[in-house]
Amino acid sequence: MTSDNIYGGLEGGGTKFVCMVGSSPQNILEEVRFPTTIPRETIQQAVNFFKRCADNTRLSAIGVASFGPLDLDKNSPTYGHITTTPKPGWSHTDMISKLHQALGIPIIFEHDVSASAFGEYYWNPQNRQKEPLVYFTIGTGIGAGIILNSRPVHGLLHIEAGHMHIPHDRKADPYSGNCPFHSDCFEGLACGPAMKQRWGQPAENLPEDHPAWNLEATYIALAMSNVIFTLSPKRIVLGGGVMQHEALFSMIRQKVLKLLNNYIQSSDILERIDDFIVPPFLGNRSGVLGAIALARVEIEEKKNN
Amino acid sequence: MTSDNIYGGLEGGGTKFVCMVGSSPQNILEEVRFPTTIPRETIQQAVNFFKRCADNTRLSAIGVASFGPLDLDKNSPTYGHITTTPKPGWSHTDMISKLHQALGIPIIFEHDVSASAFGEYYWNPQNRQKEPLVYFTIGTGIGAGIILNSRPVHGLLHIEAGHMHIPHDRKADPYSGNCPFHSDCFEGLACGPAMKQRWGQPAENLPEDHPAWNLEATYIALAMSNVIFTLSPKRIVLGGGVMQHEALFSMIRQKVLKLLNNYIQSSDILERIDDFIVPPFLGNRSGVLGAIALARVEIEEKKNN
Repeated sequence: MTSDNIYGGLEGGGTKFVCMVGSSPQNILEEVRFPTTIPRETIQQAVNFFKRCADNTRLSAIGVASFGPLDLDKNSPTYGHITTTPKPGWSHTDMISKLHQALGIPIIFEHDVSASAFGEYYWNPQNRQKEPLVYFTIGTGIGAGIILNSRPVHGLLHIEAGHMHIPHDRKADPYSGNCPFHSDCFEGLACGPAMKQRWGQPAENLPEDHPAWNLEATYIALAMSNVIFTLSPKRIVLGGGVMQHEALFSMIRQKVLKLLNNYIQSSDILERIDDFIVPPFLGNRSGVLGAIALARVEIEEKKNN
Repeated sequence: MTSDNIYGGLEGGGTKFVCMVGSSPQNILEEVRFPTTIPRETIQQAVNFFKRCADNTRLSAIGVASFGPLDLDKNSPTYGHITTTPKPGWSHTDMISKLHQALGIPIIFEHDVSASAFGEYYWNPQNRQKEPLVYFTIGTGIGAGIILNSRPVHGLLHIEAGHMHIPHDRKADPYSGNCPFHSDCFEGLACGPAMKQRWGQPAENLPEDHPAWNLEATYIALAMSNVIFTLSPKRIVLGGGVMQHEALFSMIRQKVLKLLNNYIQSSDILERIDDFIVPPFLGNRSGVLGAIALARVEIEEKKNN
């Protein structure tokens, strides 16, 4: 039975790698986390983990969800590579060949945030009816993934919705933004490091009644209303470190309603916004469980064709 | 042969209706235009046109592309209706039942801008490789449609990307915007009537060297860079009355490159932006030819299943 197949999932982030083996969120057999150091070392650690697991369990495929930018074009000679990342040592890193050589099973490659979006879509049965589904991670950076027609959306490159330009009232917020490319884009104004730089202390230390949270909710609401106008999603999932501050959710929802100003006449927004902008179903495991989901659908699809 | 089938297309706009019968842009058999007055009268004119055509030619289906907001949910009792439009007399208008009753053939219903996007996608062979494809009409209002997986994207409702919030430098442009819902959203700042109100004369009267065009290009470029970040389209088509001012295209392209600031490392943008942001292949007939294309794919799909 397909549902008994065991898959690997790798979430390769800028600070840590998470590797997992299992069939579903309810059936995780192994899980390890280790820091992201240099490619040779970190990738070898992942290879060792999956090889060890494969000695005990037949793995059908591995999903690799990597920080980007990535080459996702299957016809490109550098498919499966990280391209030009600012992260020292990681530009032009082949993320999949060593795994493939060591294990000889299909490797499915995806952008980490798209994999998180897919994890949320695939493992939460409710979300199968919620396309387009948009997932944002708001933390060290701001990333986004979109699920449509049961798969992550790929265009020219991956989704980079963290870099959209939103109104920035410099009187109310003189902070100039920290994006090295666009200064005060959404990420430049609202990512965790921007909060830290603006207020002189890390977001997690800011008290509940600090004005930081209202400003943060304003920027996130502006970006989410833009996403609603541009894509008409049926659900928005907000994850990442900054969103650990749970009070943000109700502030964002109220501000989104105000920004839309009844223009979008949908009861899903007007009456059920608590169920429209939501935290991740999978907590902080959306990425690695998304990688496993991508491996699973790849194998199931092959079987059905 | 399917390609010889004849279809009807109706583009129902706020100021005029365009009705067409044919099989493709190269084979248009009949075309009429008449002003949008009251629903009973205007819809009857369309019914009369298609009935007359059906006396001479077998019509396989009719695509109806209507101004919105629309009910596009096939399971809804008001499917095929315009919902709550500010246009006097047109709220809650059934756009398809009379046509269906009179002709007894399938009627395919779509939002006018999504139909335009589909027309550009379907009839321009190049665009079949250009998904996601985004189409904007910038004129009396600003509307958008997205094609992905060979079809217009439908979410909760239709795409309303004209209403996204973009930076508005009130020092450089004190005009407060004319959107009744959001004041200075993209449409509120950049639609034709906003240009007229800001500068005291209609856009088409403004000379080539008037600062209006630089400001207009700035707003359009901000919105397009947001669309590029959010959706990573492979092509953006800009149509509508304001875009008749051809000099806007090169100004917008330059400003988009500046806004992206090399963050999107794709040669399609960095080296070939003239081929990335383009005018409509179908001129001002994208909507009605899109309606015909929608009718055609509906019938061809039924045949193949």
